[in-house]
Amino acid sequence: MKTIYSDDHHLHHAAGEFVFGDFVPAFEKPERADLVLGRLGEVALGPVLEPKIYPREKLTRVHSDAFVTFLETAYDQWEAAGRTGDVLPFSWRAARMRTDKVPTHIDGQLAVYSFDAGAPITRTSWQAIKSSANVALTGAELIEAGEKAVFSLCRPPGHHSGYDYFGGYCYINNAAVTAQHFLDNGAKRIAILDIDYHHGNGTQDILYERSDVLFTSIHGDPNTEYPFLLGYDDESGKGEGEGFNFNYPLPWGSDYEAWGAANDDASKHIEKYDPDFLIVSLGVDTFKDDPISQFKLENDDYLRICERIARIGKPTLFLMEGGYAVADIGVNAVNVLLGFEGRV
Amino acid sequence: MKTIYSDDHHLHHAAGEFVFGDFVPAFEKPERADLVLGRLGEVALGPVLEPKIYPREKLTRVHSDAFVTFLETAYDQWEAAGRTGDVLPFSWRAARMRTDKVPTHIDGQLAVYSFDAGAPITRTSWQAIKSSANVALTGAELIEAGEKAVFSLCRPPGHHSGYDYFGGYCYINNAAVTAQHFLDNGAKRIAILDIDYHHGNGTQDILYERSDVLFTSIHGDPNTEYPFLLGYDDESGKGEGEGFNFNYPLPWGSDYEAWGAANDDASKHIEKYDPDFLIVSLGVDTFKDDPISQFKLENDDYLRICERIARIGKPTLFLMEGGYAVADIGVNAVNVLLGFEGRV
Repeated sequence: MKTIYSDDHHLHHAAGEFVFGDFVPAFEKPERADLVLGRLGEVALGPVLEPKIYPREKLTRVHSDAFVTFLETAYDQWEAAGRTGDVLPFSWRAARMRTDKVPTHIDGQLAVYSFDAGAPITRTSWQAIKSSANVALTGAELIEAGEKAVFSLCRPPGHHSGYDYFGGYCYINNAAVTAQHFLDNGAKRIAILDIDYHHGNGTQDILYERSDVLFTSIHGDPNTEYPFLLGYDDESGKGEGEGFNFNYPLPWGSDYEAWGAANDDASKHIEKYDPDFLIVSLGVDTFKDDPISQFKLENDDYLRICERIARIGKPTLFLMEGGYAVADIGVNAVNVLLGFEGRV
Repeated sequence: MKTIYSDDHHLHHAAGEFVFGDFVPAFEKPERADLVLGRLGEVALGPVLEPKIYPREKLTRVHSDAFVTFLETAYDQWEAAGRTGDVLPFSWRAARMRTDKVPTHIDGQLAVYSFDAGAPITRTSWQAIKSSANVALTGAELIEAGEKAVFSLCRPPGHHSGYDYFGGYCYINNAAVTAQHFLDNGAKRIAILDIDYHHGNGTQDILYERSDVLFTSIHGDPNTEYPFLLGYDDESGKGEGEGFNFNYPLPWGSDYEAWGAANDDASKHIEKYDPDFLIVSLGVDTFKDDPISQFKLENDDYLRICERIARIGKPTLFLMEGGYAVADIGVNAVNVLLGFEGRV
């Protein structure tokens, strides 16, 4: 399996995030992707290729133009406001507040375009964010060219980023960007399977009223887990999208047995949908030792995840999402890919 | 002028808040009220009285019952979740997220009931919050009993707290609670003049569709200032409340000349409305040296503020709101009260 990777992800290296009542070192850090890359070499999964560069229009196909402009300019605005350090929001939109206003001050724009205090924007983040989308899109092109499976080692991740908001370490939604890319190139149906521990709220948000992308997500029950206000099992799509959204919220402490049952059900829906291509939002924060997550998957479970997914039998693009247990992230992420290739 | 005050405000003493990209010592601290109390003694404004105790129903007349229950239980839930330190949220409701869900986990409840990362809840905050409302209500009772003016030295403040959310150092909206108290006791019309540097978004939120309370607010333009998404000059009320809401957003750097003109206009609207009672949400963060605000009022300007307000000629309840330049908060707040009494 080919991997797409760029060192540009190092340009996104935040000092800290605000979570659980404290300002702590950022969980989403360059070491994550470096460890996955290292593990890819150890198991000789296949060649590691540089991404191509794609135009801005690839992003605005699924995000609002104003939001992309905001991401492009956020750090400069922050600096112009006299701030040092990374961009982080501190207030948001309460119930019944204005939805028709985008304030001129960066703090106000952050209130509009963000939904948590954990996704910092550094001076060079935008370059890394763009590169991460390019890594995803280059993988998609290889799939279109006939590869059975490609691993886009994206960093920063993307699945929490919505049509016009960022958060959860995510800025541009790589899954939605690549799904749209496939469709724009003639594909009829795309399926997304999001196996990150957290609900892929951003991906669902962008695609909720569409039938040309099937979205499935297995994740911690939002009653007890971030992002809290999306990812419930009664969210089945809207309008044309009704029936094309499947959420599998699982309780804290779920092990591979419960997880695998959800994966089997999601895979059946994908088989029935018969997509041209499958996108897997690959997070490994389902691991038992993940510092911010509450599932109980073991290292070897990651080898089994893709037995079922491979049986779907579709050309499959893996996009790296979350996973914060740095000692194991390389092993677990690559185990998923090895499992897909039957190297178990 | 009588003052209502309780030492209970010391029970709300937070370690820090997250603002401007950093976790910093809390701006809203006990010293604030202590300095105002000290200054009251220096100028011998009048007797300082303890508050009476009022039932919970006084709060749920203007806040949702679920929200009040949340405030009552937040710290215990936080502790039960294994957290130490003060309660602080870290994620919120993005656009198009669920509005019909209140998650079971405290972090999810915070996402529903808060709108910034700057209003911590400590182990003993709820006692101070209740006491602050009691301080406000006791002042209101004295006004009903015939006092021309009373100063309720509330802490924590209240004007950012909405029907079902807290933020901006505010938890229960003392202005709305007392306005409702007056009306429940037979008053027909109440006017609120909010002269804190920040828009009284919570007060406006609670009263926006009502004609029995006139809300006026002079504040930093939300285009450049917290709370960013409420407080624009085209917000005039809704339904029955149409025409009973007046916002005066002023640009950064505004001095007393600009401020006084807005105050004069607001006062004219209040005179025309002819309320039974006037409530002044008294913030002194309009001061030139305030650490988080951008107006340019001088110490002596605070003596002049109430010349105009006193001319309205209505029994007036002053409720302490913001002001963070601790060296001057006592002088400035008490100058407003001295000005009202003509002691200039």
